[in-house]
Formats: sequence, structure tokens, C-alpha cells
Amino acid sequence: MTTGQLELLIEGILAGDRARIGKALTLVESRRDDHRGQARELLQRLEEHAPAKPVVRIGISGLPGAGKSTLIESLGRWLITQRQHRVAVLAVDPSSQRTGGSILGDKTRMEGLARHSEAFVRPTPSGGALGGVADRTQESMRILEAAGFDVVMVETVGVGQSEAAVSAMVDSFVVLLVPGTGDELQGIKRGILELVDLLVINKDDGETRSAAERARRDYALALHLLRGEEDGWTPRVLKISALEGEGIETLWEALCDHRATLESSGQLEVRRAGQRVRWMWRLVEEELQARLRRYSTDDPATLELERAVRAGRRLPTLAARELLDHWLEAERATPEAGTASRQD
Amino acid sequence: MTTGQLELLIEGILAGDRARIGKALTLVESRRDDHRGQARELLQRLEEHAPAKPVVRIGISGLPGAGKSTLIESLGRWLITQRQHRVAVLAVDPSSQRTGGSILGDKTRMEGLARHSEAFVRPTPSGGALGGVADRTQESMRILEAAGFDVVMVETVGVGQSEAAVSAMVDSFVVLLVPGTGDELQGIKRGILELVDLLVINKDDGETRSAAERARRDYALALHLLRGEEDGWTPRVLKISALEGEGIETLWEALCDHRATLESSGQLEVRRAGQRVRWMWRLVEEELQARLRRYSTDDPATLELERAVRAGRRLPTLAARELLDHWLEAERATPEAGTASRQD
Repeated sequence: MTTGQLELLIEGILAGDRARIGKALTLVESRRDDHRGQARELLQRLEEHAPAKPVVRIGISGLPGAGKSTLIESLGRWLITQRQHRVAVLAVDPSSQRTGGSILGDKTRMEGLARHSEAFVRPTPSGGALGGVADRTQESMRILEAAGFDVVMVETVGVGQSEAAVSAMVDSFVVLLVPGTGDELQGIKRGILELVDLLVINKDDGETRSAAERARRDYALALHLLRGEEDGWTPRVLKISALEGEGIETLWEALCDHRATLESSGQLEVRRAGQRVRWMWRLVEEELQARLRRYSTDDPATLELERAVRAGRRLPTLAARELLDHWLEAERATPEAGTASRQD
Repeated sequence: MTTGQLELLIEGILAGDRARIGKALTLVESRRDDHRGQARELLQRLEEHAPAKPVVRIGISGLPGAGKSTLIESLGRWLITQRQHRVAVLAVDPSSQRTGGSILGDKTRMEGLARHSEAFVRPTPSGGALGGVADRTQESMRILEAAGFDVVMVETVGVGQSEAAVSAMVDSFVVLLVPGTGDELQGIKRGILELVDLLVINKDDGETRSAAERARRDYALALHLLRGEEDGWTPRVLKISALEGEGIETLWEALCDHRATLESSGQLEVRRAGQRVRWMWRLVEEELQARLRRYSTDDPATLELERAVRAGRRLPTLAARELLDHWLEAERATPEAGTASRQD
């Protein structure tokens, strides 16, 4: 990418040009070393154009089938039509390594919202390590915020590790649940309850209305036992019907309350400061690994060590130590290798 | 740990001493730098005592409530009593960052198996990044194998990232499912179907028997569409009743078939070779990060950069680059820092 192309990309993002935003997101999601360099430069430049009013960042989690897409669609459309917000949606789904997405077709998800001119829906980035996907999500958020989206929702699936990563990068973390067979607490993990700011029971409609109320009581009790007030906020349990669009306004008010509490307690700035520092360290680790990889791809001694480990002729523990010493030795011998990145 | 203590630990593990095995697992799970060094030394020594006959490594995954614990308990007890195996169980559960474990109490899980003298059940290691937990699991496997356990089962929860990590460290990857509301494919991700060697439908009993058969047909079709024969193996779908212990022998036979196919196609050795190489690279990255962390903990320039990023006075992207260059410069200036690990 030339300097001129970079300028055009930045200009396009700031103007809200959808094609350019998409291009920037693809760049950020790429794992190619040269793309990473370009992405870093782009993000650095966009920091100079950080949005004046702070963006609302919401994480939404839940098991498959909990109704996350329906909720995001309802809430997103309501925010656009009733509150004049511009809404972006990012999905973090670490479950597919090869192709990404669920069998029932990501294509049809959030279609109504995705078509809206005031919304931008980015489906799951494909594959890769979770740490990687979550980092890219944070970088993607910055692009969408620079493009003028002032509510960003990050959707994450399931009971896994992604919750912790996502909750660390948003302001408010929402967990969506469906009332079940009475055995309510079976499906949710203690770890999730420790992260949640708002617990939302879906399907408060029709036949499941009384089950929803039972679930609300059970979870309110569990949250009461596990969590008290923290920095002025006590986690809440709400009921909604994502399908009928009921409870959306109440949910948004609760999110605004949480946000106001974060601001007045100073926690919002603490969270964002922590996010910046974590991002810096992630970039350091990423660059370190990229350098090691570049070096080891055609270093004969490294390749021989790898062959020996593969064949079982050398213990991985010993080989790892040799490999690292060998690389640091090489970095020392060629000082210019360490400073090359300053010039690009 | 002195050399004498290390010798005692190794001796204890090789003799199957439960207290010493537990101690070694705790050492391997620790994140302290000095413990990591000791763990690496222990693992290196244990490699010299690798078991003569190859161990069977099985990964078992499924959503919460699928019946994983019940299945592992049934299969484990059956293997001990009917096949004279010694069985170890490790859990990989990345969902709780703070306390680990589900609300319904890990303590009561697999109690019958845990009490058995020919079994060793290790509950979830607490917290930490997934990559870390999965690596430790691989190291824990090595300790249990050195202690004479010849079937090792690794349990992992849910729809998240852990499946890919676990499937890469076992020989056979089993996914357990419960028949649902007819909407069978909703709850499972394509990514899981791409990893699975054996798909097991649970609750093939009582009222859910016909639903189990429908689920079997649906998944058999989905697997047929997504996966063909690979290296002589076509993924299979089985039905069991974990509760009634039905289908356990058929499941074991299928696992033995899969194992035999892996051996005859040469894939078993390919998988294990890949595991060794990945482990080596993980160790390299881990050591690199440990060195960077040790250095940056009391380096004034690094601390100042971190403060500036926290306060928003410096961009994370710029600070990361400075920090890395600064560290490599320091490594170059004090060559002995790079070789220190050779001497310990």
C-alpha cells in the first residue's frame, strides 16, 4: 500500500465510506506480516482522529440458540430509529478453525440491520487463535468508531474463553439466556456470572413466560450470592422478548445506567486505560513472534532443530532452549535487524 | 527445588505415588517463572522414561449438560474393570477466570472414578489464558503417562476455542451431544464437525430414544456432506446411554478402530510429531515472553512507556515498537542475559 492509498483509505473511513471501511477491516483481520505492518500504521493514524464523544461498547454473549442475533437486530434497529445512533456489530466466534460460522448460515443473520444505512454488521473473522481474533476485534472497533459508529456491539458465542476477552474490551457485558427446564444454573458457568453486568432472560413471551420469571428469580439469587455492589454497580437481571421486541427500551436504559455509573466512578477511564496497555503488550508479543518466525523460516540451524524434534531425535524442551539462544545470538550479531522496523 | 527433591519427585511419579503425581501436576500448572523452569526440567527428565507401549489419548467435548462427566465415569470404570486399563482424566475448562468450575460443584463430579485406585481425576486448572491451560494439559498428560496411566481422557466444555486445542493434542476426538428439540444442528458449530472423529449421541434411553435416533440420522447426514474419508477413516455417529451405561463397549470398539486406522495409515506418528513441534514452539514463545517480562518489570524506560500509554499520552502502536526496540537493544548490550538459561 502506497502512502497515497493509505491516505485514501483514512479519508474513506472518516467519511463513512462502506467499501473502504470493509477494506480496512479485512486488512486488520489479515495475518500476513506486511498487512500487519500496514494495519498498525492505519490504526496509528486513526488514533489522531479519535471520536470526540465517547462511544458505547457493549458485549453480548450467550449459548447458541439464546437469541443473540434477534436481540442485536431489535436493539440495533431501535437505537437507529428511536435514538438516532449509528450502530456497528462485530462477531467474535472462535469455534470454527477452517471456515467460520454456524451450519445454519451466517449469511441470513441480522439481515434487516445489515441493510440499514446507519448500521454496519461485520460477520465472524475466519479462523485463527482466539487471542488473535479478540485483538483484531479491538482493532476493528477502532476503525468503526473512527467511521462514526457510536454504539458498537460485540457478539460472542457460548461458554468458552471468548467471554473474558470480550468483556475486557467493552464497557458493558450482557449475557443472554433462555429459560430452560428448571435446571437453570446448569448451562451457565460461574466465570460468566463473575463477568456479567446485565443478565438478560430472553423468551419472556407466550408459553415460556412463567419459566422466564422463574429463571429471573434463580439468577437474581445466584448473582446476589456471588456478587455484591462493585464500584457503585450491582449486576441486574432483566426479562425481554427479543422476538416481539419487548423490553428493548428497558434494556437500553439499564445499559445507560451502567454506563453513567462507570463514568461517575471513574471506572470507564480505568477500563479504557487497561485496554490500551493490554493492546500495547499484545502488539509487542505479536511483533516479537513475527520477527522470530521471519528469522526461523530460512535459518538452517532452526530448521534442523525442528526436523530433529519432529523425528523424535531431540526433546522439545531442549530444542526450545537452543532455538531461542540461537536466535538471540543472531539478533545480537546483526544489530540492524532489530531496528529495521523503525524505518519501514 | 533441589536436585534431590527433583529425583524424589521423578521416582514418585514413576512409582505411581498419587501425592507426588499431584505435586507434579500442580508444578506444571503454575505460572511462576521459577516453577516453569522446574517444570521444564521435570518434563525433560520424564521424557527419558517415556512409556514403552503407546498411550491412548482421547478428547471428549460437548455443551454443558451433554453428560460428559457421566460418560467419562462410565467409560473409565468399564476400562478399569473390563479391560485392565489405568485411566487418567484431565479437564480443560477455560470458562472461569477467577475461581474455575461450574456452579453445580466440580467436587461431586466423577466421584466414583476418582476414588478408584487405578484412576486419577484432575479437575480444571484454575484460570489463565486458554493457550496456557491447553499447553499445561499437554504437559500434565506427559506426567500421567509416565506414572503408568495408559488411557488419558481430556474433557473440554462447550462450543469454544478449546476444542481445536484439545483435538490437536489427542489421538481421537469425541463430541457428545444430547438429542434436542428437532433443531439438532443449531447447537453445534461447523468447526466442531470438522474436528470430530466420533460423534456420540447421548440419552438413547426412555422418552428420548426416538429423538436420539433422529439426531443420529441428522448428524450422519451432516457429517456425510461435510467430511468424507480422510486417511482411511470416516467419522462415525454412535448412540449411547451414559446414564444406563449402554453403548460403552461399542464406543470403545470404535475408538480402538480409529486408533488402529491412525496407526496403520501412519497418521498417529504424524499427529504426535506435530504435537512435539508445536510444544517446542510454545516453549520458545513462553520463554521469550518470560524474559521480556523479567526485563520490563524493573526497567525505568519501559515503565514510563506503560504509564504514558495508560494515561493516553502515547499511542499503543508507537509505544509497542519503542518498547521492543529498546528491549532488543538491551539484550544486545548484555549478551550474558541471553545465555543465562543455559547455565541453570
